[in-house]
Amino acid sequence: MRPSDRRPDLLRPVTLETGVNRYAEGSCLASFGHTKVLVTASLEEGVPPFLRGKGQGWVTAEYGMLPRATHTRGRREAAQGKQSGRTQEIQRLIGRSLRAVVDLKALGERQITVDCDVVQADGGTRTAAITGAWVALRLATRYLLEEGVIATDPILDQVAAISCGVFSGTPVLDLDYEEDSNAEADANFVLTGAGDIVEIQATGEKRGFSEAEFEALFALARKGIGELCELQRAATGG
Amino acid sequence: MRPSDRRPDLLRPVTLETGVNRYAEGSCLASFGHTKVLVTASLEEGVPPFLRGKGQGWVTAEYGMLPRATHTRGRREAAQGKQSGRTQEIQRLIGRSLRAVVDLKALGERQITVDCDVVQADGGTRTAAITGAWVALRLATRYLLEEGVIATDPILDQVAAISCGVFSGTPVLDLDYEEDSNAEADANFVLTGAGDIVEIQATGEKRGFSEAEFEALFALARKGIGELCELQRAATGG
Amino acid sequence: MRPSDRRPDLLRPVTLETGVNRYAEGSCLASFGHTKVLVTASLEEGVPPFLRGKGQGWVTAEYGMLPRATHTRGRREAAQGKQSGRTQEIQRLIGRSLRAVVDLKALGERQITVDCDVVQADGGTRTAAITGAWVALRLATRYLLEEGVIATDPILDQVAAISCGVFSGTPVLDLDYEEDSNAEADANFVLTGAGDIVEIQATGEKRGFSEAEFEALFALARKGIGELCELQRAATGG
Amino acid sequence: MRPSDRRPDLLRPVTLETGVNRYAEGSCLASFGHTKVLVTASLEEGVPPFLRGKGQGWVTAEYGMLPRATHTRGRREAAQGKQSGRTQEIQRLIGRSLRAVVDLKALGERQITVDCDVVQADGGTRTAAITGAWVALRLATRYLLEEGVIATDPILDQVAAISCGVFSGTPVLDLDYEEDSNAEADANFVLTGAGDIVEIQATGEKRGFSEAEFEALFALARKGIGELCELQRAATGG
Amino acid sequence: MRPSDRRPDLLRPVTLETGVNRYAEGSCLASFGHTKVLVTASLEEGVPPFLRGKGQGWVTAEYGMLPRATHTRGRREAAQGKQSGRTQEIQRLIGRSLRAVVDLKALGERQITVDCDVVQADGGTRTAAITGAWVALRLATRYLLEEGVIATDPILDQVAAISCGVFSGTPVLDLDYEEDSNAEADANFVLTGAGDIVEIQATGEKRGFSEAEFEALFALARKGIGELCELQRAATGG
Amino acid sequence: MRPSDRRPDLLRPVTLETGVNRYAEGSCLASFGHTKVLVTASLEEGVPPFLRGKGQGWVTAEYGMLPRATHTRGRREAAQGKQSGRTQEIQRLIGRSLRAVVDLKALGERQITVDCDVVQADGGTRTAAITGAWVALRLATRYLLEEGVIATDPILDQVAAISCGVFSGTPVLDLDYEEDSNAEADANFVLTGAGDIVEIQATGEKRGFSEAEFEALFALARKGIGELCELQRAATGG
Repeated sequence: MRPSDRRPDLLRPVTLETGVNRYAEGSCLASFGHTKVLVTASLEEGVPPFLRGKGQGWVTAEYGMLPRATHTRGRREAAQGKQSGRTQEIQRLIGRSLRAVVDLKALGERQITVDCDVVQADGGTRTAAITGAWVALRLATRYLLEEGVIATDPILDQVAAISCGVFSGTPVLDLDYEEDSNAEADANFVLTGAGDIVEIQATGEKRGFSEAEFEALFALARKGIGELCELQRAATGG
Repeated sequence: MRPSDRRPDLLRPVTLETGVNRYAEGSCLASFGHTKVLVTASLEEGVPPFLRGKGQGWVTAEYGMLPRATHTRGRREAAQGKQSGRTQEIQRLIGRSLRAVVDLKALGERQITVDCDVVQADGGTRTAAITGAWVALRLATRYLLEEGVIATDPILDQVAAISCGVFSGTPVLDLDYEEDSNAEADANFVLTGAGDIVEIQATGEKRGFSEAEFEALFALARKGIGELCELQRAATGG
Repeated sequence: MRPSDRRPDLLRPVTLETGVNRYAEGSCLASFGHTKVLVTASLEEGVPPFLRGKGQGWVTAEYGMLPRATHTRGRREAAQGKQSGRTQEIQRLIGRSLRAVVDLKALGERQITVDCDVVQADGGTRTAAITGAWVALRLATRYLLEEGVIATDPILDQVAAISCGVFSGTPVLDLDYEEDSNAEADANFVLTGAGDIVEIQATGEKRGFSEAEFEALFALARKGIGELCELQRAATGG
Repeated sequence: MRPSDRRPDLLRPVTLETGVNRYAEGSCLASFGHTKVLVTASLEEGVPPFLRGKGQGWVTAEYGMLPRATHTRGRREAAQGKQSGRTQEIQRLIGRSLRAVVDLKALGERQITVDCDVVQADGGTRTAAITGAWVALRLATRYLLEEGVIATDPILDQVAAISCGVFSGTPVLDLDYEEDSNAEADANFVLTGAGDIVEIQATGEKRGFSEAEFEALFALARKGIGELCELQRAATGG
Repeated sequence: MRPSDRRPDLLRPVTLETGVNRYAEGSCLASFGHTKVLVTASLEEGVPPFLRGKGQGWVTAEYGMLPRATHTRGRREAAQGKQSGRTQEIQRLIGRSLRAVVDLKALGERQITVDCDVVQADGGTRTAAITGAWVALRLATRYLLEEGVIATDPILDQVAAISCGVFSGTPVLDLDYEEDSNAEADANFVLTGAGDIVEIQATGEKRGFSEAEFEALFALARKGIGELCELQRAATGG
Repeated sequence: MRPSDRRPDLLRPVTLETGVNRYAEGSCLASFGHTKVLVTASLEEGVPPFLRGKGQGWVTAEYGMLPRATHTRGRREAAQGKQSGRTQEIQRLIGRSLRAVVDLKALGERQITVDCDVVQADGGTRTAAITGAWVALRLATRYLLEEGVIATDPILDQVAAISCGVFSGTPVLDLDYEEDSNAEADANFVLTGAGDIVEIQATGEKRGFSEAEFEALFALARKGIGELCELQRAATGG
C-alpha cells in the first residue's frame, strides 16, 4: 500500500556511518533509504558576539542541499546569493534540537558548528540531519574530552528525529519523497533518548487533521525514534 | 503568579479592529495585549510562475517588524539587505495557515498577499498575525464577491492561532514577552474553526518536555482559539 | 478647484499624536490628512565609527513604507534585499533636517535613531515624517534630561517641513497624492522655528518653472510651517 | 579670500571636451577646475517595463566615482555590492534634469543611458555631470537624427547646473572641495537655457540660512549657468 | 623527499567511481588521494538567454566546497551571500575545459550543468573536478543518446587535468595540499585525449620561474594526464 | 592579414602616461591602441586581517570597466550589486602579478591598492592593466621612499604582460578585440624584467592547440614584453 511496500510502522533502512571526513572533529553519513546527509561537527574557538564573556559555549548548525540532490536540479544557493527560507528554517531547527541535549557551560567559550549537507534527497532530510548530527556531535565532544580540551562531558542525552504523516488516510512512519508529496498531513518529531519532546512540527498539508490522527503519528514517532536511538548508540560505541 | 497576574487559562485583552487602511481590500489591527500587528490583504492579478495556467489562485503572506516594535531597537531588515531566518519562518507559517482554509480554485488566477507588520511586540506576534490575517482575508474576499470579481466564496473555514507554554512549571495560555523569554517549553497552535489541526510548533526551550505537558498546552489552546474564533466572527460580522 | 476642495493656502487636517509606542524614548503618529507616519526616537549608546572618540553624538533617521501604504501594493524592501534610491534619499533628508537643530556635543557619545514608517500614504510623506520626527526627538531628549542621562538640552530650535506645488497653474500648499501626481512643479521646504532655511528641494516635474512661481511656493511654505510649528509646540507641551 | 583666490562670482576654468569615447553615441569630458567627469550617452533599443507600449522613450543616468577620484581612496561600490545613497540620489537628479528638456515622445521606444563617471573630484561633481551630460545627450540625439533613427529633434532646450554656497559669510559661485567642506550653506541649481528652474537643492550645512542669502546664491547661479550654457553651445557647435 | 614519499612523477591513487547519484544523468566521485569531488551532470531543457534561437546547446559548470572539506572549517558561501572570486574562477575554468571537447550543436537547445562539489580537499580540487566532470558528462551524453534525446554524440574527445609544481626546487606531479602551500611555482594543465592544450594556468607563487622549469612541469603533466585518460576510459567503459 | 594590418610580431602603439591623477601616490594611463586603462596606486595604512601583526605589507588590485568602455554598453557592476566572475578573476591576476616583484616586508604594515579602471576597451585590458599597474606602483613606492615613509625599496624587478593568440592559423602578438573574438587560442603572459614567468594563462577558445603553437606564442610574448619593459623604464625615468 505504501509506494515502498513498507508496513506503516517501519523505518527505511537506516545507516549511520562515522569517520567519513578526515578533518572534522566528528562526522557521520546518515542514510535513511535513499536520503543521504553528510554531517560534520567542527570545533571553533570563541563564541558569537551575543555570548561573549558569559562563560558558555554554543552549538549551531548549517544546512545545505547539493543542487542535484533532488529529482530535478535545484539552483545553487551560493550562486543565488542567499539561503532560502526553507534552508534557514531547517538549520535553525537542527541547532535548537542539538542544544536541547547539550550543557553549553561544559563546552566553555567554544562553538561547535554542525554542517548538514544533503547529497541525495528522498524525503526526511531534516530528520536524517538531526539524527546524524547528534552522532557527529557525540564523536566530536568525546574527542575533545580525550584531548583534554574540555573536562566535563557536555552531552546530556541523545536526540533523534523522524517524520510521520497521514498517507492515503493511514498514519505511516518515515515518509519518503513520494509519500511526503502526497501526504494529507505530516509531522516531524524530535525526541530525546529519555522520550521527552524537544520539538514537534505538525502541518496539515491539504486539510486540517484531527487530534486522533496526531496521536497516531506521535505513537509511530516514539517507536521509530527508539530504534534510531539504538542505532546512534551502536554507531558511537555506547 | 503570572507576571501579568492572569489566570493560567486567560487570554490577554484581544481586539480585532477592521478598516484600518483605506486602500487595502481588507485590513485588521490585531491587538493581543501590548502586541499589535497591522494586517492588510491586497489583491493582485496574476499568480507566481509555478502556478501559471493551472486555473487556481494563491494566498501568501509577508511579515515584518518595525525596528522599535521591541524593547530595544532592532535593525531594519530593509537596511540590512535581507530578511532574517525568523522572519521567513514566520511568514511561511502564516501563508500555510491561511491556505489551509482557502479554496484556491475559487480565487481564479489571482493572488492575495497578506502583509503582517508588527508595530509593537510583547510576545505572540505570529499568532496575533495569523488571527488578524484571517480577518483581513475574510474581508477582502467578501469585497471581491460583492464586486463580482469572484463568484464563489473561497473561504472554507476560520483559522486562528495562539501560543501556550510551560511557565514556572505551569501550563499557561497566550504568553507575553516576559513569560515567553522564561518559558520551559512553548507551543504555537493553529486550528480551524472546526477544531482541526492546521499547524503545531512545539519547542522545549530549556529542556525536553513531557507528553502530558504537551496535552495540557493543547487543551489550553483549544479554549483560547475558541474565543478567538468568536472574536473573528464578531469583527467580520458573522 | 483643488481635488480636495481646499483653499490654495490651506493645510490638510494635521494631528501629531504622541506616546504611540510603549518602548521608544519618544514617539509620534503624524497625520497630514490621509498620510500617516509612525515615528519613534530610539536612544542607543555609542556612535558610528566615523565619530568615535570625538566627544559628540549623532542623530540619524531611517524611513520605510509598509507595502500597502499606497493605492496599489508596493514590494517590501526587506524582501527585495535593498532600500530603493527614493527611500535612501528621504532618510538622508530627514537626518540632515534634524541635525540642523541639534547640538550634537550636548548629546555626548550617544546616537538617537529616528524611525519613520509610513503606514498610509497620500502625498507628503517626507514632510510629515520630518515634522513628526522633531516631536519624537523633542520628547526623547526631554526624557533623557529628566532621567539625568544628559545634562544640557541638545535641541536648539524646532524644525518642520511642508510640500508646495504648482497645480493647474496655481501655487498650492500641502499637496496630496492626486495633486502631487499632476503638479507642474513641486517643492519641499524645511524651515526652523526661527524661519531659517534648512533645506529646499524644488523640482520642475513637467517643465521648468519660474522664479516668481518659486517665490509664491516659498511664501505658502512659510505660512504652513508656522502652523506646523504651533502644532508641534502643542503636542510637546511647549 | 577664497582658498582658490577666485572672486566670489567666478567659475573655475571649465572645459567641455567632446568625442572622448570612440563607441558612445555622444561623449564629453567635463572639467570644472580639478573636477573631471567622463560622460557617455548610449542608445539602447527598448524602454523599461513601466513604459512599454506607451510610444515614448526614456532618458536615464548612472553615476559613479572611481575609488581614487578623491583625496583618500574610497571603497569601490561594485566591490561593496551596492551603490551608496549619495550615488543613487545624484544619478536620480541627473536623470530628472535631462528629462526636463527632452521630448520623450520624439525618441520613440528607445532609451538613452547617460553614464557619468567621476575620474577626479574637487567639489561640484553632480553639477559638472549634469552640464556635461547635456552635451553628450545633445551629440547623441544629433547623431540619431543624422542616421535617420529618429525624425524629430527631442531636445527642447539646454540644461546646466552649478553649485553655490555661503563660505566664510560670503555667497560664492562654484564651490571647490575645500570650500564645500566648510560652507555654511550650499545649493545646487539646475536651470534651462531659458532660465527656468529645473531643480534647486539647498541645504544649511552648519546652520539654517536666510532667504536673503538664498537669493544671493540664486543670482550667482544665474550668472554661472549663463556662462555654462554658452560653453555648451560652443562645444556642440550650435 | 615529498611529504607523501611519492616519486616526483607519481600521481596519488586516483579513483573515478560512477553512478554515485541516483537522479543525475551522469555522476562521478573523483578521488585524487584525500581530495574527493562529487560530480553530477544534469540535463536541463533550454539554453541561457544569450544562446536562444541559435540552434546550439550549452555546457556549464558550478563548483562548491563543503565548509569542512578543509583542515579548518571555511565559511559557507550560501550563508555569506556570494561565491568567492576563487570559486567563480574555478567554475569558469571547468566549464571552458568541457566545452573544448563538446560539439554544442549536437546537443540541440539543451544545457548540461555539471556540479562539482568538493567533499574533502587535499590540493588539486579543480583538476580532480575537471577529470571527474568529463566522466559524468560522458555518461550523461551516452544516456541521452540511448534515450534518443539526441542523435549525434556531442563528445569530441576526452579532457583531463592535473596540477604540477616546483617543490623544494624539484618539479613534481599532482601536488597535495602540503606541497601546494609551499610550492615555488605551480601550474594546472588541461589537455585533451589527443594531447592538445585546452588550458594552462601557471603561477610563480614565491618568485618567477624559468622556462626550463615550465617545460619540466609540462612533461610531468603529459605523463599524468595520459594516465588519467586511461582511468576515464576504464570508468566509462570505453 | 591582421584586421589592423599589423605584422604578426608588432605591438599596437603603446603609451604609458604618468601623473594623470592629482591625489594618487602613483598613477598611469596605459594605452594599448584603443584600449585605455586608468591606473592609480593608493597607500593605505594597515593591512588586511589575515596579515595583521606579521610585520609585512600587502599589494592588492581592483579592476573595473566603465559601462560604455565597450562597443555596446554593459551593465554597471555597482548597480547590479556584484562584480562578475571575470572581473574578480582579472583583479586577482593583477594583484598576484604585482606581488611577485614586491618585497612585502620592505613595505611594513601598509597596503597599496592599485585600481585599474578601463575607460575604453579594445582587447587586452588585463595585460594593459598589469603593465600600467607596475608603473603606478613604481611611482608610488618611489614617492614613499622620498617621503621617508619606507626606508628600503620594495620593488624587486619590473613586471609586464601581453596577450598573444593564434589568429587565422597564425601566431600574433597583442590581440585587439576583433582578433580576440575570433582567435583559435589565446594566451596571456606575465613576465618579469629578468624574463622569469610570473603567470601564464593559455586557453584554446575553439579547439585545443599544440605545444608548437604555444611555443610560438611564448616567443612573441618575450619580444613584446621586452619592449613594454623598455617603455616602463622610460615612463618612470629609469
